[in-house]
Order: sequence, then structure tokens, then C-alpha cells
Amino acid sequence: MTFSVSTNSPDEWKVVTSAISTLVDEATFEANVEGLLFRGMDPSHVALIDIHWPNSAFQKFQCNDSIKFGVRIDEFSKLLRRGDKKDTVEVSIGENSTLVIRIKNGYSREYKMRLIESSSGSTPLPKLNFNSRVVLSSSTLDRVFSDIQVVSEYITLGSEQTKIVFTGKGDSGEANITLDQSSEGLEDITVKESSSATYSLDYLSRMIKAIGSTGGSVIAEYSTKMPLRLEFRVANIGRIHFYLAPRVQD
Amino acid sequence: MTFSVSTNSPDEWKVVTSAISTLVDEATFEANVEGLLFRGMDPSHVALIDIHWPNSAFQKFQCNDSIKFGVRIDEFSKLLRRGDKKDTVEVSIGENSTLVIRIKNGYSREYKMRLIESSSGSTPLPKLNFNSRVVLSSSTLDRVFSDIQVVSEYITLGSEQTKIVFTGKGDSGEANITLDQSSEGLEDITVKESSSATYSLDYLSRMIKAIGSTGGSVIAEYSTKMPLRLEFRVANIGRIHFYLAPRVQD
Amino acid sequence: MTFSVSTNSPDEWKVVTSAISTLVDEATFEANVEGLLFRGMDPSHVALIDIHWPNSAFQKFQCNDSIKFGVRIDEFSKLLRRGDKKDTVEVSIGENSTLVIRIKNGYSREYKMRLIESSSGSTPLPKLNFNSRVVLSSSTLDRVFSDIQVVSEYITLGSEQTKIVFTGKGDSGEANITLDQSSEGLEDITVKESSSATYSLDYLSRMIKAIGSTGGSVIAEYSTKMPLRLEFRVANIGRIHFYLAPRVQD
Repeated sequence: MTFSVSTNSPDEWKVVTSAISTLVDEATFEANVEGLLFRGMDPSHVALIDIHWPNSAFQKFQCNDSIKFGVRIDEFSKLLRRGDKKDTVEVSIGENSTLVIRIKNGYSREYKMRLIESSSGSTPLPKLNFNSRVVLSSSTLDRVFSDIQVVSEYITLGSEQTKIVFTGKGDSGEANITLDQSSEGLEDITVKESSSATYSLDYLSRMIKAIGSTGGSVIAEYSTKMPLRLEFRVANIGRIHFYLAPRVQD
Repeated sequence: MTFSVSTNSPDEWKVVTSAISTLVDEATFEANVEGLLFRGMDPSHVALIDIHWPNSAFQKFQCNDSIKFGVRIDEFSKLLRRGDKKDTVEVSIGENSTLVIRIKNGYSREYKMRLIESSSGSTPLPKLNFNSRVVLSSSTLDRVFSDIQVVSEYITLGSEQTKIVFTGKGDSGEANITLDQSSEGLEDITVKESSSATYSLDYLSRMIKAIGSTGGSVIAEYSTKMPLRLEFRVANIGRIHFYLAPRVQD
Repeated sequence: MTFSVSTNSPDEWKVVTSAISTLVDEATFEANVEGLLFRGMDPSHVALIDIHWPNSAFQKFQCNDSIKFGVRIDEFSKLLRRGDKKDTVEVSIGENSTLVIRIKNGYSREYKMRLIESSSGSTPLPKLNFNSRVVLSSSTLDRVFSDIQVVSEYITLGSEQTKIVFTGKGDSGEANITLDQSSEGLEDITVKESSSATYSLDYLSRMIKAIGSTGGSVIAEYSTKMPLRLEFRVANIGRIHFYLAPRVQD
């Protein structure tokens, strides 16, 4: 069994591990000839992340079998953070159940990290129909989340026709942001049916900070009182899906 | 009753609220056709701040009556901090005793903050004659306060003829700074009578950090064992007076 | 007795005091007509620092006798940190057992700091023969220490012929860095006899951060299971020697 993959920068691995670290402490990756996958839920089963990193997005991708390997995300992140933007990063499975990380540029560091037992169960994706679909720049979405978070722990998304309203209420007051087709940062909006749902800002803002720094657009899809799905398209990775259950209000 | 005012930037409100926040948690503003006023003392009655923000300094100023409104300064500051330098900020009194803050630039955020009961009493200004008057750049004054604060919690100002000496003493040693007409940052000095008084550096350095970043000159006036008055002239606000009682030594 | 010395910047004193502060709280300096010296060990006698700052490296050096003076390093550092890069710093011994620090540029600050009783004993230098000698850029050495520190509190140096291998092992895994003549940052290597020894990274990384920022080369010399000596050559100071005992493993 061979698993050895390279990227031209540690940044892709940093995005993947920081996204995962918002949900879990231990992560099981799956690899096969087609690429690298991660799917997992947070312990309270409110949020799910689904990463598909195809072999073509790597500088080098060698994997001749279908394998699973488990890592402690904070340890892995700590090692990856030693790499600078221009360092080449090679990740491979070595002897004695270790993950070998080689970070090279000028001089080469080799880390060996103990793998942990990988979880065997697979996480099914929820089947969802979305009535509202909004495409936003990730910086706008980050700003909206932060603006609402000043007064509230929850955000309500309300869309109708060609606009979406974000609201939050807390002890000290309320916040209200309306984006329509004339607003900077709103790239597209399609509303089949007016939709309204409320989500935890804690999960959302951690996720946008983990992935959003890569800069592209984010597709947000949801329906009334149903889960939200965010789709991030990240250069040199592929797509990351983030699902979040709505807040069930009394 | 109408109260609705706009500025081309959140910076003026940030200076005003951060200056006020060095003294009190809850602030009562007074507005009338001429402008916006704040006057208040800290709970121990050692320091007083007096802000006069004339209508002409606003981009838009609508107020058809004499009104008072109370806010929690930290909540107000938190909302204002969401604004970037180039955002327009509109502050108005809305329905149900709320302060409505609209921050606009590209996209618009609307916050509603609950007003609190405003204090009804008015704070009289102390009547003072000053024997020494020193004009300094705010960056020099900030540096002097920080230089003395390394060794002492108090600063003594001693002026005679054409120089002023700042001193501080603490357990580990003492500090001594002399500024005369040849010193960088001392713009003017007028001493009617030699003066010496000691003040709390804690209040002074918090105040200079809150307001001094706006960069202009500061007029410091005092007499022996009498209160100090600092006058800040802030672009697009007007003047802010800060009074500080001297330390009464045993 | 006169002691009065000047430098064109506070940076040299900052390097000297921050290096010393990694080992001790109170420091005794020795001055004579030839220069300023400091030699001291940490309380556990694991590390020794030996600084030789010749009179020629000062802008002004006046000392007509052989004297010792003791300071609390954190107090001294706190005062020196008030100086900016371009400030002139004059350090002299004043009346009543005080150290007088004048920081000048535009305006002048004068601090007086109480001297403390100086320790009378002298610290002998260890007599050592080194089998391995490696010259590295200080930035590379800082990076190597930080890279290993991610997984371990100790670093093992293993040299043979023309290469040196740095390794560290901890609970979460291990790290491995090999530098040879082709590696960026390794300027020279001379191995009389293959050498291997393990040292505390805590001391090493604090020392490289205190001195290494000045940028030059570092000469590292050691032998198997014997102390390590780092030689720093610092512009406008001279040389600083740092000795570190090896870890005695069970």
C-alpha cells in the first residue's frame, strides 16, 4: 500500500485541517486512486463537513488502494503551520503507522506523527431540496456574520424574490442587513420559494474564517426551517461542503 | 421629536465614545438645535469630561428639540467598531426608545440598540484660573505619559518661565523629562506663576490614548495643587475638555 | 570613580539585557578601562552566558577604574524599551548608588534606577575541547529550534563528516532536520570526530530569540555528551558566548 501526496504550498492542507478542526478533534481521511476525502460531523450532530480533494489538484498523488487513516487534527495543524507559503509539502504514510510530513524549501524538515485508529463508520449526506440559493463573495459573508454576531449568537436568513435579509437579536439590541442585486458582494440570488431559517453563528463564523480566507465565492443554499449548505470552491483543493442544521426554536 | 445625525466616518463617534468610556459605563448625551453635548464625571469624581460637538461638524444634523438620551457606552462602541474608516454612519432615535445606527458603504448594516434611562442631573464645570499653559503635540504628550508611567503611577508637572519638567517616582527609581522652547513637540508655554501639581497617570494615559490618536495639539493648563485641564481639538468634532483633580498627598 | 558610556541606539543594551534575562533576574556587570563584561549562570547551573563588550564598540566609554554594579534586569530592560532605534542612550553611575539612563532624540528622558548589591563571586569558564564546529545563520538556527520544538522539549545534535542532523522526539511524534554543505543557512561545518548530544530547547530558543534578531552568524561547537557553546558576533557589541550543559539521560 502506497500513499504519498505533494502540494506546492502548505496552504491547502492548512485550509482543510482548520475547516475540520472547527468540528472535530480527531479526523479520519479516506484516500483512493481518485483523491482524498473527508466527511465528518461534530459531536452534537449539528454540523457536517464534506471535503472532496481530487488527485488532479495535487502536484503529485500516489495512492494505489483504498485506505483510511486517522489523525489528531491539532497535532497535524501544528506541524503544517511550520511551513511557509512557498514550501513544498509531502504527506505520506510511513512505517509503524506514522504519517510522514516533509516540508521543503531551502532546507527540509521531516516530521513523523503517530496515526490514530480511524473511525470505521461512514457518514451519510442529508438529502435536501433547496428553495433559496445565494452566491456571495466570502469576504462579504464573513462581514455579514461578524456584523450580526456583535448582537446575537444566531442569524436568521430570510429570502424573497431578489433579496436576502440577515437578522440577529440579542439582549442589547438587534441587527439587520439587507442584500439585493445592487449590493456589493451579492453575486447571484435565486429564490424558488420565500425561505426563512435560523442558524448558529458560532459554527458559521468559525467555518468562514477557516476557509473564507482563500477568497472565492460561497454558494449558500437553504429552505425554511431546513439545513443550510455552504459550498466553498477552493483553488488547488476542489469543493468543500458545509451543512448546518437549523436552530429549533421553542 | 427628531434626532438624526450623520458623519462621513465612524471615527468621530469612536473618539467620543472611547473618551467617555475611560470615565463611565453609562453616558447621557444632550442634543439640541446647536449640536451634541456630553458632560460627565467618573464615579470617584476625580475626572470630568466635557464634549461640545457642534452641528456644523456633522455631515447632516437634524434635531428640532432639546433632548437627552442614555446609552451603555461599551455596547455603542462595539457597534461603531463594525464601521470602517470610509463608512458613513447615521445615528438616530427610533421607535420604542432605541438608538438606530446605520453603517453604510457598499452594503448597509442597521443596528437598533436599547436606550437606557438618562441621568437627569447636570454636572457644573469647575471655575478655575490657570497659572501655567503649555501647548504640546498629542504624540509628545502621549510619549511623556508613557515614559513616566514606566516607573510611577503619578506624574508631577512643574513649570517655571519657559520650561516644564515632568517627573515621576516609584519603588524602582525615578524619571525626569524637561521640555523647553527648543524641545520638539512643545509648541508654546506661558507661565504666569511657577506651578507644581501631581496627577494620576492612569486617567491621563487612558485619555490621551482615547483622543490623542487624532493627532492635533493639546493645551494643558493648571496651577499649583489645582486641577489640570486638557483641551483637545479634534477634526470634525470640535473641542473636548478633560479636567483632572490633583493628587492630594499626605 | 567615573562610569559613563554611550551608544547610538538602545538596541545593543536591549540585546545584552534580553540575553541576560533568559538566565537571571539580577545581574552584576563588571567594567574597567577596556570595556564592559558580564558573566553569569542560571540558578540551576545549566547555562552560562559570557559577554565581552569592548570600549571600542561604544560611541563614548569613560571608566577610570575597575568596578562592579548590580541591576534588576527586568527594571533595566523596561527603561531601555522606552528608547527608539535612533535614540542615543547614555548609561552612567550617579550619586546614591543609582544607574542613570538618559535616552535622547528630539527630547530627553532621564531615568534613575536603584543599583542592587552586586554578587562578589566570579564564575569560571568551563574548559572544553570541541569535536564539532558548525557555523549557521542565526535565522536558520532559530528556525531549526522552532521546528524541533513543535514536537519536543529537547534537541539532539548529531554530526558526522560534513553534515549535522537535528532530531527531537515527543509524545506526538518526532522531527528530523538534516543540514549539509548544500543546505541554505549552513555556512561551515568541521567535524573532527562524530558527535552526538542532547540539549534543552527552552534555553536555546529563548537565547536565539534574544540575540539572534541581530542577524549575523552563530558558531555552534560541541562534543558527544558535552556542553554546547554558541558564539554570537553582534554588531556594536562584540561577542557573546552561551554555554549549555547537555541533558543527562537516565
